[in-house]
Amino acid sequence: MVRVAILGASGYSALELMKLLLRHPQAEITALTTRSTDAKHVGEVHPALADRLDLKLENLSPSQLAERADCVFCCLPHGASAAAVAELVPRGKKVVDLSADYRLNDAAEYERWYGVKHPDAARMPTTVYGLPEIYRERIQKAELVANPGCYPTSAILALAPLLRAGAILPRGIIIDSKSGVSGGGREPKPVFHFPECNESVSAYGVGTHRHMPEIDQVLADVAGADVNVVFTPHLIPMDRGILSTCYAEPTGEFAGDSLLDVLRDFYKDEPFVRISQSLPATKHVSGTNFCDITVRSVRGRVVVISAIDNLIKGASGSAVQNFNLMHGFEETTALL
Amino acid sequence: MVRVAILGASGYSALELMKLLLRHPQAEITALTTRSTDAKHVGEVHPALADRLDLKLENLSPSQLAERADCVFCCLPHGASAAAVAELVPRGKKVVDLSADYRLNDAAEYERWYGVKHPDAARMPTTVYGLPEIYRERIQKAELVANPGCYPTSAILALAPLLRAGAILPRGIIIDSKSGVSGGGREPKPVFHFPECNESVSAYGVGTHRHMPEIDQVLADVAGADVNVVFTPHLIPMDRGILSTCYAEPTGEFAGDSLLDVLRDFYKDEPFVRISQSLPATKHVSGTNFCDITVRSVRGRVVVISAIDNLIKGASGSAVQNFNLMHGFEETTALL
Amino acid sequence: MVRVAILGASGYSALELMKLLLRHPQAEITALTTRSTDAKHVGEVHPALADRLDLKLENLSPSQLAERADCVFCCLPHGASAAAVAELVPRGKKVVDLSADYRLNDAAEYERWYGVKHPDAARMPTTVYGLPEIYRERIQKAELVANPGCYPTSAILALAPLLRAGAILPRGIIIDSKSGVSGGGREPKPVFHFPECNESVSAYGVGTHRHMPEIDQVLADVAGADVNVVFTPHLIPMDRGILSTCYAEPTGEFAGDSLLDVLRDFYKDEPFVRISQSLPATKHVSGTNFCDITVRSVRGRVVVISAIDNLIKGASGSAVQNFNLMHGFEETTALL
Amino acid sequence: MVRVAILGASGYSALELMKLLLRHPQAEITALTTRSTDAKHVGEVHPALADRLDLKLENLSPSQLAERADCVFCCLPHGASAAAVAELVPRGKKVVDLSADYRLNDAAEYERWYGVKHPDAARMPTTVYGLPEIYRERIQKAELVANPGCYPTSAILALAPLLRAGAILPRGIIIDSKSGVSGGGREPKPVFHFPECNESVSAYGVGTHRHMPEIDQVLADVAGADVNVVFTPHLIPMDRGILSTCYAEPTGEFAGDSLLDVLRDFYKDEPFVRISQSLPATKHVSGTNFCDITVRSVRGRVVVISAIDNLIKGASGSAVQNFNLMHGFEETTALL
Repeated sequence: MVRVAILGASGYSALELMKLLLRHPQAEITALTTRSTDAKHVGEVHPALADRLDLKLENLSPSQLAERADCVFCCLPHGASAAAVAELVPRGKKVVDLSADYRLNDAAEYERWYGVKHPDAARMPTTVYGLPEIYRERIQKAELVANPGCYPTSAILALAPLLRAGAILPRGIIIDSKSGVSGGGREPKPVFHFPECNESVSAYGVGTHRHMPEIDQVLADVAGADVNVVFTPHLIPMDRGILSTCYAEPTGEFAGDSLLDVLRDFYKDEPFVRISQSLPATKHVSGTNFCDITVRSVRGRVVVISAIDNLIKGASGSAVQNFNLMHGFEETTALL
Repeated sequence: MVRVAILGASGYSALELMKLLLRHPQAEITALTTRSTDAKHVGEVHPALADRLDLKLENLSPSQLAERADCVFCCLPHGASAAAVAELVPRGKKVVDLSADYRLNDAAEYERWYGVKHPDAARMPTTVYGLPEIYRERIQKAELVANPGCYPTSAILALAPLLRAGAILPRGIIIDSKSGVSGGGREPKPVFHFPECNESVSAYGVGTHRHMPEIDQVLADVAGADVNVVFTPHLIPMDRGILSTCYAEPTGEFAGDSLLDVLRDFYKDEPFVRISQSLPATKHVSGTNFCDITVRSVRGRVVVISAIDNLIKGASGSAVQNFNLMHGFEETTALL
Repeated sequence: MVRVAILGASGYSALELMKLLLRHPQAEITALTTRSTDAKHVGEVHPALADRLDLKLENLSPSQLAERADCVFCCLPHGASAAAVAELVPRGKKVVDLSADYRLNDAAEYERWYGVKHPDAARMPTTVYGLPEIYRERIQKAELVANPGCYPTSAILALAPLLRAGAILPRGIIIDSKSGVSGGGREPKPVFHFPECNESVSAYGVGTHRHMPEIDQVLADVAGADVNVVFTPHLIPMDRGILSTCYAEPTGEFAGDSLLDVLRDFYKDEPFVRISQSLPATKHVSGTNFCDITVRSVRGRVVVISAIDNLIKGASGSAVQNFNLMHGFEETTALL
Repeated sequence: MVRVAILGASGYSALELMKLLLRHPQAEITALTTRSTDAKHVGEVHPALADRLDLKLENLSPSQLAERADCVFCCLPHGASAAAVAELVPRGKKVVDLSADYRLNDAAEYERWYGVKHPDAARMPTTVYGLPEIYRERIQKAELVANPGCYPTSAILALAPLLRAGAILPRGIIIDSKSGVSGGGREPKPVFHFPECNESVSAYGVGTHRHMPEIDQVLADVAGADVNVVFTPHLIPMDRGILSTCYAEPTGEFAGDSLLDVLRDFYKDEPFVRISQSLPATKHVSGTNFCDITVRSVRGRVVVISAIDNLIKGASGSAVQNFNLMHGFEETTALL
């Protein structure tokens, strides 16, 4: 039984993580943290967990944490996360970091997009990007895994197979993503106020969203060539789900129908990626760790569409998948 | 042309008020206020009004306001509203107060429910409650009108005719109301955060909601007897609309079918109340000043159901209706 | 391993049932039926189950079914369900019937409310009503269990403890329920068309809903006295969840605070009922088998409020709970 | 006073049209038609119009219609619409056709996309496409106007100014559109069943949507060059609104900032197009005839984003705008 702590346990990712871990036969949640000094019971913070988990959210020091847990899931904001990770990894703890802190390899790039100096830059270049479908073997051996962003997960899973197969060009890729509101976190803000975002759809962060360099980096690694995507996220009036509609130029090496075979072949052994001729809908993956993908050829352009649950495959589900890989557990444990 | 000012112009009621007044041939919006010192253009605060109204929200003193406007709509929070009204009425301005400050007649009752001393208590007993269907003649002569609360409008319009006709008993009335989220105002709060209230329904303010004494007071006036309703508001994942399902004990004076006639008779000359045998839905009154009502007899209990748009008939629409009455304009101007 | 069949596998209850049973270590889904002659793969009918269950929906005869399964969940419409059950029980199959066919004890009452003659009336009086919190011991010994309706589950769990304790009177009970749209089933109808029910709330079936006699029957059994509730269901623009706000007259035997103790005491050993001083929200039970309940005293009236997920605790979750009880499995298996 | 008839008055466009025309001082609705033989009152078909319009939906012949109305709005399905128009125009009636029948100029192209032979092909090449911002002068002189599709309106208004100014290339344009569900009409279908499309987003008609050739045709006319857009519509869980995110390659003639000036200049005298540096949201145009547009330069690609209400600017609002132009009325009458 692995003793597990969750850092920053008051948000939506943490809630989903607890729900998943409560079903995990080899994990026991032993500590929950908050930066607030007012220790509340988890059932108060997350009424959905009332009577299910008898723990308080506490303001624990790294050494207190290290005593209580063998593995730590970090759900802290960027910056705060790296500060905690830098204390935990040297203490021999396995860490899955759900923040953005270790996703980029390059400290200068991080500083450009996040506007702060990275507090643990030395660890950046070697930290594994926790997308099992791309980096499974490295994850299995990792002590620290950078859990991918929600948008990058949806976009990379859609595009990586086609890039690797040489079916699409690395330049000129457009990713038009639509996300439910839980992706914005649990802190009330005007833009997430119900009467503002309900019955409305809008783009945001056009050309400036921090997930853009993350997508570039992983796709470039897969393609072996520079990638500079145009990424446009949109806010959709629903709780959960991301649909990414990706547009790319074909190389001409594959005819329309065989594009689907490229995807099928790439994911043939994957437990959580489903390739289908049908158009995916976020509803069909809601509450699950699945990613549904299809591809079409439209007027000489390749259109790949993927659907995930932003809180599961886009955050806590993939975190548990990484946890399973890091500990040698069956990869699908607690996820089906 | 009446020059009109709106105090506290940043909220949802003010937005709807401006949309209605922009269609009013006898009203011109000449001033908008905010308590912020940072004067923003109305199109910035309400993007829906961009290019439609060329005014800034300003922090104006009562005397500045008095110079700019003949009539003032107060959309300030309770307390702040009465402080402003107390300055404006003596300056000869007609005022429609959308806050709760002048709805109750009794200062002690106000203090009990609102937790603050009323800043203008002397004016409370004589201020007209602005529900035209009950107090039209008094509104026509008023300088100051207390615009009704959204829940009270829906409940009173449903129950008043049956009480006045002696069809139901004044005791034991239950009002179970369901409201869209815009009723909670524009300030972001956890309970109105999209991922918290979307896909959820819950009761709130059970037995403690401030609209309860307001309903009691008006129904008691109509019935000529004490009324103490049990009022339970619920939050519904939609922008607008209130449905009130009211349960009362019949006196036995009217058979099931004739209850509908009591309503039809009471409202036969009303431009904004529609009585129907069909069950009302908030969608059918959304964006309008209508109140749809039906009544049924179920197992010896009278069930009256009403639907309004909380921001129109429940706030800004009835404010314009009162404005029309106070100025001798056609009552339906800008409302159909 | 119990071989399980699902009759009428194309609807929402069946979908949730399959999701739950796929997690059940002692159950294997071996047959799915449809009345259509066109055998489709379950992944086509329910894209959420693609790659998760390799079965077709087939038009199977009772004897074919009997060969394939040890236990049958009936998700057929009323009438059709009893016809199937009458064939399966004599073949020694355990059956959980999610239709309304065996909930009422009295065939004449059934005919009055459902408008058809019951095809298996002899079995009605002795069939167990599958609400474990009330009839656990009888369920454990049953071959056939009538799975409760969604509204009755929410209302009975709220009111039964107070009736049994003599805290409220059996007469004059009002149940005002709010349900998500999935409760209406999967067949497209105008009233469930997105632009009709989205952004709207309305009552329906006022005084005529078929769950009313079901609630009466069980509460009367609990109270040992006649019960005739006034029940008003409402349609809420959300997928899932029922909130029931129940109003009753206190007997005066219990003070306000001790009402909560009555509930806590009644449910102290129950794994799926959570009593709290906080007001429940359907979101906190969504996707779970929990029922959250609180009680308040308002102006001399008892107000009890309960929340469930209509598809889980209100249908498929309680079906699995009954399945566990009938087979001697741990009651919470696949449900936490 | 122009006597107005609405053909096919049971759908959502017709409802919005009636709401607008009820505010029009120079229009009187004198006839409503349905293809059903059961003449229902409009308040029964559209409860929102109860007590507001005293007309029945009748099954009228063209000659009956011609006697009752001077101008006809056609809200019939394609095919049926042209059959009616062919009878009405020769009788000297002005017609605004909201169907797709006269939008394309070429009968063969129509047959390819709509799968039926056009019943009035001779009129196709000369019928004016009713987008006032592009074809105002021709609309003013027209007897028959083809009211634009909702998606084309949003896409053309976004792209036309940039094409005409030579700011973007006519090839390689991608239009990723997000629409509320009312765009799918009022007939219940599985894909519009609330529990199917609520809390979900999905693409549909990828590469096959009939609005694609319509967009091509108008943009080609504006650009003076062939245009073949890649158009991907998406279904969003909301009632109304279309957001179109358009991606194009810049010619290099205009720097990032000046793209906005191109839009501002093109629309400087337009009453219903608002250009802003802010990102548009469908909520801000909901219920209005406005189209909000912005443009950004992202990594060498031009991103233009537009928002409309699909039922107003995308259907009935532009129909009234065309009606005003055709009759020489103030263009904004009944639309502000």
